[in-house]
Amino acid sequence: VELGAQSIVDRIGQAVEKLLKDNKIAYKDFIAVGIGSPGVIDAARGIVMATSNLKFENVPLAKMLSDRLKKPAILENDANITCWAEHVAGAGKGCDEMLLLTIGTGIGGGIITNGEILHGFDCNGAELGHAIYQPDGRKCGCGQKGCIEAYASASATAARAEEALRGGTKSLLKKVLDEKGCVTCKDVFDHVAAGDALAKEITDGTAKALAQFCISMLHISGPECIVFFGGMTRAGDLFLNPIKKFFNEGIWTIKKERVRFCLAMLGDDAGIIGTASLAMHTQGK
Amino acid sequence: VELGAQSIVDRIGQAVEKLLKDNKIAYKDFIAVGIGSPGVIDAARGIVMATSNLKFENVPLAKMLSDRLKKPAILENDANITCWAEHVAGAGKGCDEMLLLTIGTGIGGGIITNGEILHGFDCNGAELGHAIYQPDGRKCGCGQKGCIEAYASASATAARAEEALRGGTKSLLKKVLDEKGCVTCKDVFDHVAAGDALAKEITDGTAKALAQFCISMLHISGPECIVFFGGMTRAGDLFLNPIKKFFNEGIWTIKKERVRFCLAMLGDDAGIIGTASLAMHTQGK
Repeated sequence: VELGAQSIVDRIGQAVEKLLKDNKIAYKDFIAVGIGSPGVIDAARGIVMATSNLKFENVPLAKMLSDRLKKPAILENDANITCWAEHVAGAGKGCDEMLLLTIGTGIGGGIITNGEILHGFDCNGAELGHAIYQPDGRKCGCGQKGCIEAYASASATAARAEEALRGGTKSLLKKVLDEKGCVTCKDVFDHVAAGDALAKEITDGTAKALAQFCISMLHISGPECIVFFGGMTRAGDLFLNPIKKFFNEGIWTIKKERVRFCLAMLGDDAGIIGTASLAMHTQGK
Repeated sequence: VELGAQSIVDRIGQAVEKLLKDNKIAYKDFIAVGIGSPGVIDAARGIVMATSNLKFENVPLAKMLSDRLKKPAILENDANITCWAEHVAGAGKGCDEMLLLTIGTGIGGGIITNGEILHGFDCNGAELGHAIYQPDGRKCGCGQKGCIEAYASASATAARAEEALRGGTKSLLKKVLDEKGCVTCKDVFDHVAAGDALAKEITDGTAKALAQFCISMLHISGPECIVFFGGMTRAGDLFLNPIKKFFNEGIWTIKKERVRFCLAMLGDDAGIIGTASLAMHTQGK
């Protein structure tokens, strides 16, 4: 284990001890440690396999923190943690079958089935951004073609708008592109609100891709509730209503579906609520 | 409850009693009843919600059989039963994360995650034939457009061949169409074996659709093993090898995947093995 990981563990340990002391919590009332981490996580073994931001490789983070604090520790990837938080205390409360999609720079997600986080073999489950939306479609950073992430993430939405502008499509967004040299996803949604036709076409493309993916997921994991999280959801109804519209237009007609679409409720607190709650849930098993 | 269901239950009851007697099995050694059924099944409540072949609607089949035989009874849909059978005693033995695809007139499936059958809310899970392969694509009988079933089922494969022939594509299959008035999926695979170019193009289309769906499913439920079942799999390697080829060409490059592709092993016995084993498994919980 490289020094970097150990020193991070020590700093987390010190922070926990300070938190207990500051809040006058007895050590015996401190039950378990929950850690949320980006990257490829082996939750069952508590190992960070790889991350892109920190230089972690095969770091047994759960065991290291458990050894440091003398308490049981669990490790989970951050999208699953967010999903778990919304499941226990947010928009998916009471739903033992739930899907969470985080729409930001990329697309991540979590699946709850039978009241538990779906992990899959080799931690492959719920890497939802890389489900294929358009066979032989747009190139994705992962090496595949046509991933949902390559169409409906915030960066793909901005990229599709820029491509249309550079291709000569008329739009008020052209001014933004000329001034800033780029267009953000927020710019696109702001221009939908202002009635710009290209902006609407681009965000409709995003909504349609997400709706078609939700149709597939309804038939795959069968969620009661689909929760959206992440930067793009700040557009609120401008984000959510078109997804519902395209879902209703595209879904099968042989029976009526009761699935609900909602925005996440916990915001930045999801990480804290999710890790704490999951650590207690795992202890209870 | 209509008379039809009660009389079927009575006949099953008599058949079970005869079986026990003929095989000299004491009634006390008969532990539980497992029932596999086509149609929309509420496995948790043991109810056949609807079927297309039998006129069953909201029939509490598990309770009726349990009352008749004085033993606990479970009910499960037939694709999930097949999946469970292959999980406990077939190609997916030892895999707690598994996907089964039944490729016949339609496409059905089952998902095992965390060692249990995935059901989803409202019995919506694992209706895999209606995941969308091609947005705005071929019409499916369910009312959606572009379902995987509308491309890669046996009937869709035959239909795509017929369309190409009627559109004037040259092929030895034209003779079959002219003589029989139709082409079957088996005809198409037989002509691949004989080196026919159109037949190869059509079955490659089927294999590519299945491979792309397997890529999506790898990122969704994360199976260790993907098992194919049903009529089309009789083509053996002619069926399976192109799926593997398209999967390997299309899958992401950021890590190497260990998922295995196999043909189902249990054939027609899957139903019997699956129901019996699932009834015992459920009793054990």
